[in-house]
Amino acid sequence: MATEHQTASGSDAYERLESRAKRIANVKAAGGVLRWDQEVVMPEGGTPARAKQLSTLSSIAHEELTAEETGELLAAAEEADLDEAERAVVREIRRHYDRATSVPTELVEEISETTANAHPVWKEARADDDFEAFAPTLETLVERKREYAEHVDPDADPYEVLFADYEPYLDLETAERVLTRLRDELVPLIDAIADGDVEPARAFSGEFGADAQEDLSRDVLDALGYDWDRGRIDTAPHPFSTGTQFDARVTTRFDESDLLGSITSTIHEFGHANYTLGLPDEHYGTPLGDSRDLTVHESQSRLWENHVGRSEPFWEFFLPAAAERFPALEDVSAREAFEAANEVYDDNLIRVEADELTYHLHIVIRFEIERELISGDLDVADVPQVWNDKYEEYLGVRPETDAEGCLQDIHWSHGSFGYFPTYSLGSVLAAQLYAAAEDELGDLSEDIREGEFDELNEWLRENVHRHGCLYTTPDLIEEASGEPYTADYFVEYAKRKYGRLYELDGH
Amino acid sequence: MATEHQTASGSDAYERLESRAKRIANVKAAGGVLRWDQEVVMPEGGTPARAKQLSTLSSIAHEELTAEETGELLAAAEEADLDEAERAVVREIRRHYDRATSVPTELVEEISETTANAHPVWKEARADDDFEAFAPTLETLVERKREYAEHVDPDADPYEVLFADYEPYLDLETAERVLTRLRDELVPLIDAIADGDVEPARAFSGEFGADAQEDLSRDVLDALGYDWDRGRIDTAPHPFSTGTQFDARVTTRFDESDLLGSITSTIHEFGHANYTLGLPDEHYGTPLGDSRDLTVHESQSRLWENHVGRSEPFWEFFLPAAAERFPALEDVSAREAFEAANEVYDDNLIRVEADELTYHLHIVIRFEIERELISGDLDVADVPQVWNDKYEEYLGVRPETDAEGCLQDIHWSHGSFGYFPTYSLGSVLAAQLYAAAEDELGDLSEDIREGEFDELNEWLRENVHRHGCLYTTPDLIEEASGEPYTADYFVEYAKRKYGRLYELDGH
Repeated sequence: MATEHQTASGSDAYERLESRAKRIANVKAAGGVLRWDQEVVMPEGGTPARAKQLSTLSSIAHEELTAEETGELLAAAEEADLDEAERAVVREIRRHYDRATSVPTELVEEISETTANAHPVWKEARADDDFEAFAPTLETLVERKREYAEHVDPDADPYEVLFADYEPYLDLETAERVLTRLRDELVPLIDAIADGDVEPARAFSGEFGADAQEDLSRDVLDALGYDWDRGRIDTAPHPFSTGTQFDARVTTRFDESDLLGSITSTIHEFGHANYTLGLPDEHYGTPLGDSRDLTVHESQSRLWENHVGRSEPFWEFFLPAAAERFPALEDVSAREAFEAANEVYDDNLIRVEADELTYHLHIVIRFEIERELISGDLDVADVPQVWNDKYEEYLGVRPETDAEGCLQDIHWSHGSFGYFPTYSLGSVLAAQLYAAAEDELGDLSEDIREGEFDELNEWLRENVHRHGCLYTTPDLIEEASGEPYTADYFVEYAKRKYGRLYELDGH
Repeated sequence: MATEHQTASGSDAYERLESRAKRIANVKAAGGVLRWDQEVVMPEGGTPARAKQLSTLSSIAHEELTAEETGELLAAAEEADLDEAERAVVREIRRHYDRATSVPTELVEEISETTANAHPVWKEARADDDFEAFAPTLETLVERKREYAEHVDPDADPYEVLFADYEPYLDLETAERVLTRLRDELVPLIDAIADGDVEPARAFSGEFGADAQEDLSRDVLDALGYDWDRGRIDTAPHPFSTGTQFDARVTTRFDESDLLGSITSTIHEFGHANYTLGLPDEHYGTPLGDSRDLTVHESQSRLWENHVGRSEPFWEFFLPAAAERFPALEDVSAREAFEAANEVYDDNLIRVEADELTYHLHIVIRFEIERELISGDLDVADVPQVWNDKYEEYLGVRPETDAEGCLQDIHWSHGSFGYFPTYSLGSVLAAQLYAAAEDELGDLSEDIREGEFDELNEWLRENVHRHGCLYTTPDLIEEASGEPYTADYFVEYAKRKYGRLYELDGH
């Protein structure tokens, strides 16, 4: 290895840069284990020490990334004769480095402190249905994040800068185009459903014991091909997935009155973990062994949750397994289960309880509001009013409290403006990828009906997972599906599936 | 905070030194969580990534400790006007710093690599009962550790230097004096027991389901006052305890043919965790909030395991709880349980299965052998012969295989020469502390019989736990017990307890 005194040659610089990246990745992975531990197994009393451990790890990762040496190695590596994969590694590190070095440490720390303090304030405000108690904190967060954006790129739309923290390669124009299309297509579709007289079967009502639900969650993971040698399932209040290609875990939760919720949530988290497990082992710790950003990640969870888990063939396959755990389901038909899994709730106010269609209107509302908050066109004080008006306009339902309205989500208390859109962008991408897979493999219904998921999974491994961050998001999409990112497939899928299910004209 | 450019004033230097110590402590605590995770919940496939994460964390901790700035801050802080507690903090950091900076990084890495590779070699050699397969590795480890000792202090006995990694403040002469005393007192005591005709009751034979054992482990932790808000119990192949004052967890294991083993192991690990939980919250991350070394730590586990958990009053108290979980125990008397918990096995070859008395002879044998290995007076090739001869001499039993002999323990494959003695030194200290507690609180039998452990625990908190590393080990012992470290109390305790139990002359 070259000593510090030598001027690094290009390939030396590249290797040293890669070592730094691995070191940072290991620190971050350690942080991931600590967070999993905190959510899943840590005794309550551990919180103060855990907060300090996590903050130390995140400082170390930040310092290693922003160190002068990183900048020097990047500059040297960029002059070197590198192959495509190496150039991708440099591109990704450069992006993180530029962003991290452009924001003053004091502001980073201020934001981190503000969000740490914001969490309990938001929680209490929601419990008390008291938006005004949260408003000053939200105001501060909006201001600080605007400053943050200003530091990263003073010439750009600040919301676009924030959005890029979650989805760096799809520009805001694309995001906006897709979300507007979703709004314009889904509002009339949902209206038509509400105006129709089809009542989907309510197949999953009753009591479902948590232990048997856990067994069933394992059944579904078994069926989908989850690699237990590199994973595990546990419960957490807010289900998530975390880990590396060597150890990608899922969590779920069990509501004894809602069996469907735990099954779809488990499948959703499987999609995330399965993506992580498909990243190449040999590139662990570098961008080539790391997942693409939130749009692609969410496409993987939504593809399995919606295109597989909410399909009729899936229920033809899986219902007998469910009935073995819950004999009350013996009288339910696959068709009824399918209907129940796709019921559209036009009176639901809560995003995380939304169905596959109305979900996107919840997202559109948040997107429109947070854009205006960051641009300054909307005052924090007016958020509840605007929120409620938009719910009425897009979903035909008006929250009676802010707890059920603009206080329902944790994201803004984290300062995560720009995160919400990636949920919908991921769903849209899921449809595009699923269509591309079927284009190559043929109709997958029969496979799913047989409980055969290997072909689909192989296709995803081959076309998405194994690339890590080799390609940017748009290039990856084009590489995998043969065309640029588009909402066409999602719109077509939604209209076809729900048109049939709700017997709408023209379907 | 002072900037880097200023010459740090003394108290500035102290504060910055303390910050560094906290940062390092947090990195180490993160490593502890990762190791707990690996032993308890990690899927097997996670190993390669986990090894890299742990090695990164340990490099970072090492680099932070040995950084030039640490040396400068130490020098400045040592010139400053500090109070007793601050001086203790500086003393402890100085000790770690001097040791870490005296050994070349290459040697540290070589040892770390050699031990990583040694583990599977040892495991296979033990499985195959093939000492020669392990001998070259052991040879390398002995040489490297001798070099390590030479770097730390070229003028000292190298074994003493290694011993100080586990017990820095009790000198080797003290350790040797205590171990020799144990050998000289225990060999005749064990002989007398073997020659007698008292057969202790075998109260705990039968089948004990793992689930009920787990419930009983929780019962015993409840009874002893384990703080569940800051702890949890899980199973692990090799029980251990880990954590911080905010989150100190225990692990245990369940052998369905051995109920006593899981109870005593749980109580033992409780003793460790309970010490950790007694460290002051406000000093988390500095030596004042950290536990003293292995002798003191082991004194806490042995005190609870032996002086409490193997006492007759304990079984008067706890047997009904055990009988509730295992109705077969309803016919067992407390006296019989007490006898069973203290049976001396003079034909046992395995350290981890040894009783309270013969245990120390297992330790003495390892101590004598590893001292000579490090001094060069004993060749690796002769270890099996010497091992077997000593077992015959001290314990009257000769291993037939090396798997049951010198290959049984993992420690040497870790390069941990100097670790073994601390097990016995801790037991000896347990007796001294227990005597001091009874000296102040009066006979504790009645409390234990009533399941009242608060007074004893309060005494330990007050006299041992809350001090962290404020005192050196000898000073802490003197502070807590009123006299220097001595084996008198252990010898007296052993003779009295086993003299009565085995009806020996003069007891």
